Amino acid sequence: MILLYTDFGDEGPYLGQIRALLAREVPDEAVIDLMHDVPPCNPRAGAYLLAALADELPARSVVLGVVDPQVGSGAREPVVLHAGGRWYVGPGNGLFSMVARRAGVTEVWRITWTPGRLSASFHGRDLFAPVAACVAGGASPPGEPAQHVILGPPGWPDDLAEIIYVDRWGNAMTGVRAATVERTRTLEVRGTRCRFATTFGDAPRGEPFWYENSCGLVEIAVDRGSARDLLGLGVGDQVDLVAGRGD
Amino acid sequence: MILLYTDFGDEGPYLGQIRALLAREVPDEAVIDLMHDVPPCNPRAGAYLLAALADELPARSVVLGVVDPQVGSGAREPVVLHAGGRWYVGPGNGLFSMVARRAGVTEVWRITWTPGRLSASFHGRDLFAPVAACVAGGASPPGEPAQHVILGPPGWPDDLAEIIYVDRWGNAMTGVRAATVERTRTLEVRGTRCRFATTFGDAPRGEPFWYENSCGLVEIAVDRGSARDLLGLGVGDQVDLVAGRGD
Amino acid sequence: MILLYTDFGDEGPYLGQIRALLAREVPDEAVIDLMHDVPPCNPRAGAYLLAALADELPARSVVLGVVDPQVGSGAREPVVLHAGGRWYVGPGNGLFSMVARRAGVTEVWRITWTPGRLSASFHGRDLFAPVAACVAGGASPPGEPAQHVILGPPGWPDDLAEIIYVDRWGNAMTGVRAATVERTRTLEVRGTRCRFATTFGDAPRGEPFWYENSCGLVEIAVDRGSARDLLGLGVGDQVDLVAGRGD
Repeated sequence: MILLYTDFGDEGPYLGQIRALLAREVPDEAVIDLMHDVPPCNPRAGAYLLAALADELPARSVVLGVVDPQVGSGAREPVVLHAGGRWYVGPGNGLFSMVARRAGVTEVWRITWTPGRLSASFHGRDLFAPVAACVAGGASPPGEPAQHVILGPPGWPDDLAEIIYVDRWGNAMTGVRAATVERTRTLEVRGTRCRFATTFGDAPRGEPFWYENSCGLVEIAVDRGSARDLLGLGVGDQVDLVAGRGD
Repeated sequence: MILLYTDFGDEGPYLGQIRALLAREVPDEAVIDLMHDVPPCNPRAGAYLLAALADELPARSVVLGVVDPQVGSGAREPVVLHAGGRWYVGPGNGLFSMVARRAGVTEVWRITWTPGRLSASFHGRDLFAPVAACVAGGASPPGEPAQHVILGPPGWPDDLAEIIYVDRWGNAMTGVRAATVERTRTLEVRGTRCRFATTFGDAPRGEPFWYENSCGLVEIAVDRGSARDLLGLGVGDQVDLVAGRGD
Repeated sequence: MILLYTDFGDEGPYLGQIRALLAREVPDEAVIDLMHDVPPCNPRAGAYLLAALADELPARSVVLGVVDPQVGSGAREPVVLHAGGRWYVGPGNGLFSMVARRAGVTEVWRITWTPGRLSASFHGRDLFAPVAACVAGGASPPGEPAQHVILGPPGWPDDLAEIIYVDRWGNAMTGVRAATVERTRTLEVRGTRCRFATTFGDAPRGEPFWYENSCGLVEIAVDRGSARDLLGLGVGDQVDLVAGRGD
C-alpha cells in the first residue's frame, strides 16, 4: 500500500500524474489518498500531523510524503526512512522527523538514484514517486544508508503547542499528544480558556473546549459550532496548557 | 464494491484513514468515492439524494454512509440495512430511511459489535468502516436483527419538496422524483415560476426552468447560467409544484 | 488504465456514478483521476492542457475526457480517438484536437451505439463511460470509422499564447510548449514583462518570471508568491513572447 500525503490540494494534474505513474509501475499496489491538504509549504505542521496518523497505517505501507517548498533548490536531501515497520519517501526537510523520533530506531537512506528526467518543480512525480514504487515493490531504497542524514531542522519539540490543522468543521488540531496532558489542565488560545471535555455532547453548548481527537491529539472544538470562527483560529497559533481549572 | 457517501468534504485525514483501513481489511474490494459533499450534518437531504442514486449502484454493493451530526451522543443507533439487494452501513438517523421505504422489503440490524477502540468523534472509521468491510467480505452483520429499529425520525414525506443539493454549476436538485410530476406543472421557488423543459437547449436562454435530472429528480436550472446565483437558492428552500402553466 | 479528465470538480455525485459504473463494467481496470478542474466549459483550454499531459500517460491507456458544455444539444459528435498509442473517448468539440494534431496519424470513430438510457445532461455517465469501458476491455469502438469527423472548431493554433490553467499556488500555465521558445525571449502578460528562469530559485525574489513547467509548457510564476495574485492573471489572458530581453 502506498499512501499519498501532500499539500497539493485536489486541484491540477499533479496528483493525477503521480497516480498514473504508480499505476503503471506497481499496478497491483493499492494507492491511497491519505491527505492532500497538509498546511501548504509547512513541513513542520505536516510532521506532527503525520506522526499522529502513522500508527494507524498498515505495516509495510509506504508513505509518499510531499510537502516540499524548497523543491529544486538543493537545500534539502531526498530521503527514504524506515520507521515503525513503515516506509517514508520524500524531502528531508523535517516532514518525517517526528515519525522518526517517535519510532526510536530508524533506518535512513539518502536517495542517490537520478531519474532520466528531473523537472525543476515536480520531484514528487519525477523522483519520489518512482522511489516509492521501487520500495513498495520490495527493492532496497535506491540510495546510500545515511544514518546521520539530516531529516530536518534541529530543535523541534516532542509535542508542538501550536495549531497544526483546522478541519472543515472548524475544529483546530494541535501538535500535542493528548496522552501527555492531564485532563484537569486548561488550554489557552488567543486569550480564551478551554476546559477538557470527553466528547462534544459533554461540553457546554456554544463554548470552546479541548478534547482528545480521533488521532490522539489535543483539539479545540465547539459543539455545533466552529472553533475557528468563534476564536479566529489558524495554523500556527500558539496554545498553552496551564495547570488547574481556574477561570 | 464499497461506496463512500459522506459529508466529510475532501479535506483532512478522515477519508484517508477510512480508505487505509478498508484497503487493509478487504484488499480485493473496490472502494469508490460516491460523494463526499452531502449537505453537512443534514441526513434528511442526504436520505433523498441517496435514494435517487441507489438504483444505479451495483447489486451486492455496500454503501458506507456517514452523515452523523449526533456521533458519540448515543442519540442514534448504528445500523446495517439490506434493501434492494444492496447493503447500507451507518447511523440510524434517517440517512437510510428513504432507501428503505422505496425498497419495500428490507432487513435491518442494530450493530452490537464494539471495536477495540471507539473514538468519541469518528465512528465512521472506528465502527462503520470495519462493519462495512465485514459485510462486503460476505459475513453476517455483526449485530442483532431489529426489524423495528428506528431508521430515523418519523413523518418524512415520500418526496421532499425542498432543495436538497446544489451542484457546482448552480443547478438545484429537489427531493421530488420527476416521474411523480406532470410536465405541465409549474415549479415555484422563492417567488419565481419555472416551467418544464426537456433539456437545457429547450429552455429559454437566461430563464430558470425545471427538468428531470440525470438521477431522476426535479432540478432547477438555467441554460448557460446558475440557478443558485440567479434565484439565490440554497439547500432547504421549499419548492411548490403547482397545476397548470399560469404566469 | 482509464484516466478521468473532466471539469466536474470534486463535488456532487457525478464522478462517483461514473466510478461505480466503471468498477462494475471493468473491475480489473485501474481508474485514475487525472484531473477534474479543467477550466469549466472550456474545451479549448482543456485541449492544450491534455496534449501537454498525454505523452506521460501509459501506452494503451484510455482517457475518458468530459468537458462538454453542449451536452444534449446535438451540436457535437461523440467520438473515439486513437492517437499516439492511447485512446480518447468524449465529445468532438475540440477537446481532443491538439492530441490528434500532435500525434499525426490518428484513427477516429463516431460513436453510433446508443445506451438504453441517455439522460439529457449526463452523457459522461450514460454514453462516454460505457464506451470507455468497452475500449479499455479491448473491443473495437462501438461506432463507425470517420476519419473526417470534425474533432473540433477549425483554426486553432499549434500553440496557444493564452493562460490555460492557474494552479492552487497561483502559477499560470500557458498553451505554449516551452521547447518552441528561445530562453532569451521575454514574456509579456497584462503589461508586465517576465524573463526566463530555469527554476524558482534562479528568479529574482518577488518578481514574475517564466519557465518550463513540469509538463513542458511555458508557465508564469513568482518565487514564494502567486503570479495570479501579483498580476491579476486568469484563464484566457493573452501572453506575448517577444524577442530580446528589453526592459
